[in-house]
Amino acid sequence: MTKKLTIAIDAMGGDHSPEKVIQGVEIFLKKNSTNSDFILHLFGDEEKINKELTKNNINKDKIKITHTKSVISDDATPLTAVKNSKDTSMWNCIKSQIEGEADISLSAGNTGVLLILSRMILKMMNEVNKPALAGLWPNEKGMNVVLDLGANIDCNEDNLVEFSELGAALYRSIFPNDKPIVSLLNIGSEEIKGTETLKKAYKKLQLLSNENNFIFNGYIEGNKMMDGNSNVIVTDGFTGNVALKTAEGTAKFITDNLKKSLTENLFSKFSLIFSYFALKKFKKRLDPRKYNGAIFLGLNGPVVKSHGGTDALGFSYSIDLCYKIIKGDLIKQIKKNLSHVNNDNKES
Amino acid sequence: MTKKLTIAIDAMGGDHSPEKVIQGVEIFLKKNSTNSDFILHLFGDEEKINKELTKNNINKDKIKITHTKSVISDDATPLTAVKNSKDTSMWNCIKSQIEGEADISLSAGNTGVLLILSRMILKMMNEVNKPALAGLWPNEKGMNVVLDLGANIDCNEDNLVEFSELGAALYRSIFPNDKPIVSLLNIGSEEIKGTETLKKAYKKLQLLSNENNFIFNGYIEGNKMMDGNSNVIVTDGFTGNVALKTAEGTAKFITDNLKKSLTENLFSKFSLIFSYFALKKFKKRLDPRKYNGAIFLGLNGPVVKSHGGTDALGFSYSIDLCYKIIKGDLIKQIKKNLSHVNNDNKES
Repeated sequence: MTKKLTIAIDAMGGDHSPEKVIQGVEIFLKKNSTNSDFILHLFGDEEKINKELTKNNINKDKIKITHTKSVISDDATPLTAVKNSKDTSMWNCIKSQIEGEADISLSAGNTGVLLILSRMILKMMNEVNKPALAGLWPNEKGMNVVLDLGANIDCNEDNLVEFSELGAALYRSIFPNDKPIVSLLNIGSEEIKGTETLKKAYKKLQLLSNENNFIFNGYIEGNKMMDGNSNVIVTDGFTGNVALKTAEGTAKFITDNLKKSLTENLFSKFSLIFSYFALKKFKKRLDPRKYNGAIFLGLNGPVVKSHGGTDALGFSYSIDLCYKIIKGDLIKQIKKNLSHVNNDNKES
Repeated sequence: MTKKLTIAIDAMGGDHSPEKVIQGVEIFLKKNSTNSDFILHLFGDEEKINKELTKNNINKDKIKITHTKSVISDDATPLTAVKNSKDTSMWNCIKSQIEGEADISLSAGNTGVLLILSRMILKMMNEVNKPALAGLWPNEKGMNVVLDLGANIDCNEDNLVEFSELGAALYRSIFPNDKPIVSLLNIGSEEIKGTETLKKAYKKLQLLSNENNFIFNGYIEGNKMMDGNSNVIVTDGFTGNVALKTAEGTAKFITDNLKKSLTENLFSKFSLIFSYFALKKFKKRLDPRKYNGAIFLGLNGPVVKSHGGTDALGFSYSIDLCYKIIKGDLIKQIKKNLSHVNNDNKES
């Protein structure tokens, strides 16, 4: 029997947990009823978890539970949380990875604390200089990866090159058949545009593009992030975070205004009956829950952060993502990509 | 008779000019038929302009024309354009401001060249260290000002403070009764977040906030840019440009997908009949043409850049903007705001 892929899940993190987490588990298990190569290892209050499992009629064949006593609160600061975290579901969830019991960790809990604990427990890979936070972004042809989304405010050209390799490895672990197309986010597509750091990263990426890990596509501007022509979009953590939140804000603003217009009066409400299915399809196509899950890259094990406010379906998508990532053997992909950068650096 | 407010218009810039420009002029004149305190001074091919004026039945009472021989092409680089620009509509349009013939310039032509020519001809105000490009941004309560949108990639804290004063002056010239609320764009709202430059700008703005020009609201994140709680949002030109284009790309992505869903099959097309008015209202509310016009701030005269691809209605909105800006006496507002910064700097 080959060892099963194990996803360690913090069952207590985020709003409405463990209810939401267990309902997410149920959706995931139903979707994967014919697969038997995985185990979901839940960390949290065993009694509460069991109660929810029973309530949802979940068979425990593919489930393992480890009882933990406490939970990291949403308003804990990284500093206070680190001191008192050894009994928490989050700590033990991540810890199971270095003990060889799990291949990936997933939590919807406090982001700041999750990043700090992951780094403390899993440690950075030797090959990596800065870990990065990557996200999935919808586009015209499917989805792409964007990083860094806020782990590193100041980045030099080597960090951006490293993010390109990390992002390409992530993309290939999720979509095994594609050769990732990598673009650098900038304020113009011409070679002379942008900061000195970007210009230096551009030159280095052009050289690496001849190798086998990814195709470098040059600069792209913010309005091209969703055209589907890039699989991995690389930027520093400050710009990435602003871009992500601006996109979220814009999407919310537009859909709120659409809702307002469609429910303003009796006639427009009446019209909703007719456009119901079309609008439902529209909503489904752009459902943010599909893109739920930011991936912390560069540690000796992958960690996925689910949005704290997502629901059971959103949480199930982040379990999907974990499953894909470990099936695609992300860590091996990263090591392969980065050995190559390091060799190149040594050669030059 | 008091001197009339004069808007110098490059009639030849952008797509489909001068047709579009003259049609935009017509829309503006109709809207302002009862106002007689302004002159629209058109620069370009006199014959073509006159032909369009006749075609659109436009009375020339409020119009002045200066014939110019050539046009700056859309693909001219600033370097080549500057050398051969003295006979162009753009050059002469801006030039009329230093000759005291106009109070503001408007062009839909080549952005890079417009910025360079404006700076060459109008020169920076003594009070200013870096000129900035500001834009109008829709929000839940109306619209706000965002700057810098790309004129300056590298900015220090004093530049950000200056942008705050420039943006506040612009906002007050457009909305004379409001005391502008200024926010700094960052990746978190807590005081400890962000780059060192932002932290220093935060402290300086807190001190200035007690004075009379604006209320400093602290940091905001990208997803709050459209909530209507800030009137002026300040950032460096790199981040501002990425945020602007990401918002544009997101808006396009969502509306394209909405269109696709609503026209996918016969039933969804049929439903459009019923939701037509609601969707029209939605479209009108978010019409990007309403926000057409980026304002170049910090020179000895205001310059407005219309989107090159906008239509007549979009162009008319940028004439509206020019009219508001000079009625609100932007340059006086800026001098007032900046004398105050400079005094504070001298005192400290």
